[in-house]
Amino acid sequence: MTIEQAVSELIALQRKMAAYDHAMGLIFYDGNTTAPKDTASNRGASLSILSEEMYRLGTSDETVGLLEFLDANKDQLDTAQKRMVHLLLKNIRDMKKIPMDEYIEYQELIVASDDVWHRAKETSDFELFRPYLEKLFATAKKFALYIEPDKDPYDHCLGDYEEGLTKAACDEFFGKLRSEIVPILKEISTKPQVDDSIRRGFFPEDKQEELAYYLMEKIGLDLGHVGLATTEHPFTTSLGSHFDERITTHYHLDDFVCSMYSVVHEGGHALYDTGSADELAYTVLDGGVSMSIHESQSRFYENIVGRSRSFCKMIFPKLAELFPEHMADRDPEEFYHAVNKAEPSLIRTEADELTYSLHIMIRYELEKRVIAGELEVKDLPAEWNRMYKEYLGIDVPDDKHGVLQDSHWASGLIGYFPSYALGNAYGAQFLSKMKETVDVDACIESGDFGPINDWNREHIWKHGCMYKPVELLEKVLGGKFDPDYYIEYLRGKCRDIYGI
Amino acid sequence: MTIEQAVSELIALQRKMAAYDHAMGLIFYDGNTTAPKDTASNRGASLSILSEEMYRLGTSDETVGLLEFLDANKDQLDTAQKRMVHLLLKNIRDMKKIPMDEYIEYQELIVASDDVWHRAKETSDFELFRPYLEKLFATAKKFALYIEPDKDPYDHCLGDYEEGLTKAACDEFFGKLRSEIVPILKEISTKPQVDDSIRRGFFPEDKQEELAYYLMEKIGLDLGHVGLATTEHPFTTSLGSHFDERITTHYHLDDFVCSMYSVVHEGGHALYDTGSADELAYTVLDGGVSMSIHESQSRFYENIVGRSRSFCKMIFPKLAELFPEHMADRDPEEFYHAVNKAEPSLIRTEADELTYSLHIMIRYELEKRVIAGELEVKDLPAEWNRMYKEYLGIDVPDDKHGVLQDSHWASGLIGYFPSYALGNAYGAQFLSKMKETVDVDACIESGDFGPINDWNREHIWKHGCMYKPVELLEKVLGGKFDPDYYIEYLRGKCRDIYGI
Repeated sequence: MTIEQAVSELIALQRKMAAYDHAMGLIFYDGNTTAPKDTASNRGASLSILSEEMYRLGTSDETVGLLEFLDANKDQLDTAQKRMVHLLLKNIRDMKKIPMDEYIEYQELIVASDDVWHRAKETSDFELFRPYLEKLFATAKKFALYIEPDKDPYDHCLGDYEEGLTKAACDEFFGKLRSEIVPILKEISTKPQVDDSIRRGFFPEDKQEELAYYLMEKIGLDLGHVGLATTEHPFTTSLGSHFDERITTHYHLDDFVCSMYSVVHEGGHALYDTGSADELAYTVLDGGVSMSIHESQSRFYENIVGRSRSFCKMIFPKLAELFPEHMADRDPEEFYHAVNKAEPSLIRTEADELTYSLHIMIRYELEKRVIAGELEVKDLPAEWNRMYKEYLGIDVPDDKHGVLQDSHWASGLIGYFPSYALGNAYGAQFLSKMKETVDVDACIESGDFGPINDWNREHIWKHGCMYKPVELLEKVLGGKFDPDYYIEYLRGKCRDIYGI
Repeated sequence: MTIEQAVSELIALQRKMAAYDHAMGLIFYDGNTTAPKDTASNRGASLSILSEEMYRLGTSDETVGLLEFLDANKDQLDTAQKRMVHLLLKNIRDMKKIPMDEYIEYQELIVASDDVWHRAKETSDFELFRPYLEKLFATAKKFALYIEPDKDPYDHCLGDYEEGLTKAACDEFFGKLRSEIVPILKEISTKPQVDDSIRRGFFPEDKQEELAYYLMEKIGLDLGHVGLATTEHPFTTSLGSHFDERITTHYHLDDFVCSMYSVVHEGGHALYDTGSADELAYTVLDGGVSMSIHESQSRFYENIVGRSRSFCKMIFPKLAELFPEHMADRDPEEFYHAVNKAEPSLIRTEADELTYSLHIMIRYELEKRVIAGELEVKDLPAEWNRMYKEYLGIDVPDDKHGVLQDSHWASGLIGYFPSYALGNAYGAQFLSKMKETVDVDACIESGDFGPINDWNREHIWKHGCMYKPVELLEKVLGGKFDPDYYIEYLRGKCRDIYGI
C-alpha cells in the first residue's frame, strides 16, 4: 500500500464513521424531540445493532492495520492527517480493551436508562431509576479500569471529556471558586433583593419561538444549516458533519427567559461546531475539541454576552414587540438586573452565574465519591439534599427538583459536569483577550456579532480538534489558564448588580 | 450448520437490515420534516454510505450462502420462514444484477433529485428538474432490464410495487374506469354545482393540529407508537419496525379539509403497518405487503369511511368546537356535500373521488410512454398539459400545478401511481365484504371504529407480507378482484350528491 492509497482509505474510513454517527445521532435526536412516547425499545434495538457495526468497523484488523501503517509512516503525513491517525488509534486502542458484548450492552443500557430517567423524573421516583444508575456508574468504573487499569477511574472519566483533567486539578479549582463565591453569596443575602417580575407572566409558545429564531439569526447562526426543535432537556448535536447542526429548547409558558437563554447557550455550541473549517468535515477533527472548550463557547454566548447590559439593551425592543403588554413600563436596565439576580436555587440549568458553579461542585463531589466507592447510588438523593443545604442553604422538596433533574448520568455522561465550570472560567479569560482587539460591548449593543464571531472563529472554532484542549487554550490565551479572570468577572457583575 | 442455527442467523440478518432501514428511513423522514434547508447533500453523503453497507450486507457470500442453505432445506421451515427466505432471495438476486457503483449512484441521485424537485416546484422551473428526471427514468429502465432482461421494462416497474401487475391489466382496468367516469363527469357538469364554502376561511394551525390528533385517536391509532409531523408532501413511514410509525400532514390555513383528509389517509397507512402481528417485527414480513393493498387501506379510511355521510355527522361537533364562528349556521349535510364535490381540478392529492382516477391515468400513460421511449422527458410538461385538457377539460397554468406537483418521480417511484387507483377499487370491494358482518355506517356514526379495525386487522393487517398481494386479495374477498364494485360505489356517491 502506498501512502497516498492509505491516506485515501483513512478519509473513506472517517466518512463511513461519520455516516454511522449521523444515523445514531439522529435516532437519539429524534427520540428526544419528536418520537412517539413508547418507541424507546425500538430505537434501542436499532442503536445496539448500529453501534455493533460501528464497533466492528472501528476495531477490524483492516482498520487497525491501516492506522498502524500510517502511524509508522507519520513523517510523510501532514499535521491534520497525523492528528487524525493519533485520535483514531487512541480511540481504537481504548475500544478494543472493552469486550464487544459489554460495549453493546452499554449502548442498550443508555437508551433504556434515558427512557426510564424521563419517566422517573416525571413522577419524582428515584427508586425506578436507581438500578439503571447503579449499572451506569458501575459500567463507567469498569470501562475506566479496562482502558487505564493503573489510573484512578474517576481521573479517567474526567480525562474522557477533557484530555488531562484530574481530580487534583478540579479539587484545586473548585476549592478556590467555593472560597470566593460563598462569602459573596452571604453578602448578597444582606442586600435588597432584585425584582425579577419582568420575566414572569404568560408568554405564548409561538411568540417564544419567534424570539428563538430571532436570537439564532442575531448571534450569527446560519439557519440553512442549523435547526431548532423542542425537547425536555435542551442539547445540541451535529449530524454527520458540521453542515447539519441541531439545537433544542424547552418553552416555559410562565417565564420566557428560560428558553431565551437556552437558545443562546445551545446557539453557542452550534456556532462552535459549525465554525469548523469546511475541510475538516467528515473527519474526526470536525467540531469542538472538548467539553470544556465547548462549554466555554456556549456559556460565553449565554452569560458573558447574553447577560451583559449591552445585550439586554439590544434585545429589549424585540421583547417589547413580542410581549407588548408585558413590557409596557419596563426598561432594559430592569431586564438586565432580573437576568442577573443571584439567588440560591434548586435547578442547575436555571441558576444564575454566581451560584452555577456550586451546583456543579455538588455533582462533581457526588460522582467522585460514588466512583471511589465512598458513596452508594442508593444514598445519592439524601446526600444530594444534604449538600444543597450545605452549599446553597436550601431544602430540596423532591428528587425531581433534586438528584433526578439532569439527563447527564442517564446518558452515561459521568465526569462531564466539571467541564461546565471550567468552560465558564475559560470564557472569562477569552473575553479579556478578545477585548484587546474587539470593542465587545459596542458590538453587542449594536447587534453586530461579526467581529466577536470572527475572533472566536479565527482563534477557536476553525481549528476543530486539530489541537489538544490545553494546547488550544494556550494558543488562544498566549499563556496559562488562570481562574482569577473568572473570579474577577463574577465580582464585577456583583458590584454592578448589588453594589458589593 | 444446523437448521436451528441458520434460522437464528436468518432472524439476526433481518434485525440488522431493520436497523439500516430505521437509520435511512429516519434520515429521509428528517429531511422532509425538520431538517434545515441546506442540508440535503450532507444527508446524501450519509445515505450513500449506509446504502452501500446495506448492499454489502444483503449481497455478501455469507448472506447468499445462508439463504441458499435454507432454501435447499425449506421443507424444514415454517410458512413464515419460507416466505422470508423467498422474499430475501428474490431481493438479493435482483440486487446482485445491479452493479454496486450504479446502485450507490442511484441512491445519491434520489437524494439530490428530491432536493432539486422541491426547489423546482417552488419556482415552477421544470428545466431545473429535467436533467434529474431524465436520469431517474433512464435508471428505472436500465435497472428493470438488468433484473428482468426479457420483460417489458415498464411491466417490471409495475410489478415492483404490485407483484404480477402488467400494462395489459392496467390498460384494461383504466380503460373501463375511464369509459364509466367521463360520462358521469359530463352529466355532473350539467347539474347545479355544490357549494363548498364551508371548507374555506381562516383556520389557525394549532386548531388544525388539534383536529389531526383528534382524528388519529378517533380512527384508532395508538399515539404511543404513531407520531405526527408536518411536511410539504404528506407521507407515512415505519422506522425499524411497526412499533414506530410516523405520519405527516401539511396545513393549508385557508382550507382545513386538506390536512384533515391527509391525516385520515396517512392514518390508514399507519393502521395497516402498525396492525402487523407483533411477531413479524424486525423481519421482511413486517408492514404492508404491496402499494395497492396499502393504498386500499389509506383510501378506505380517507374516502369510503372519511367522506361518508356517517363520518361527516360524527366529526361535525368537533369541527364546530374548533371553528365555532365558521361553523355557525352550518350543518353536517352541508359538510358531506362539500367534501364530495366532484369537479375537474389541477392537483391530484386534492381531487375528489370521481376525478381522482383520471389524474392517475394521466401519470400512468406518461410513465408508460417515457419508459417505452415513445415520449421524451423534455416533452412531459406539454404532454401533461395536453392530457389534462383532454381527460379533465382544464388548462394547467404552470408546471408547479402540473408536472412538478408530485414527489413520486423525484423519489424514484416510477410505476407506483397505478396502485392508488387499484387501491381505491380494492377498498370498495373490501367494504362490500365487510358489510356482510359489520354495520359499517353505524360504527362510523357512533365514532366506534373497533369493529371496522378488527375486521381489517383480522383479514388484512395482521398478515403483514405473509401472502402475495393477489393471494391476500382472494383470501379476503373469497373470490377474484372485480372493479365493478368500485364503479358501483362511485355511481352511488354521485346519485347521492348530484341525484344522477
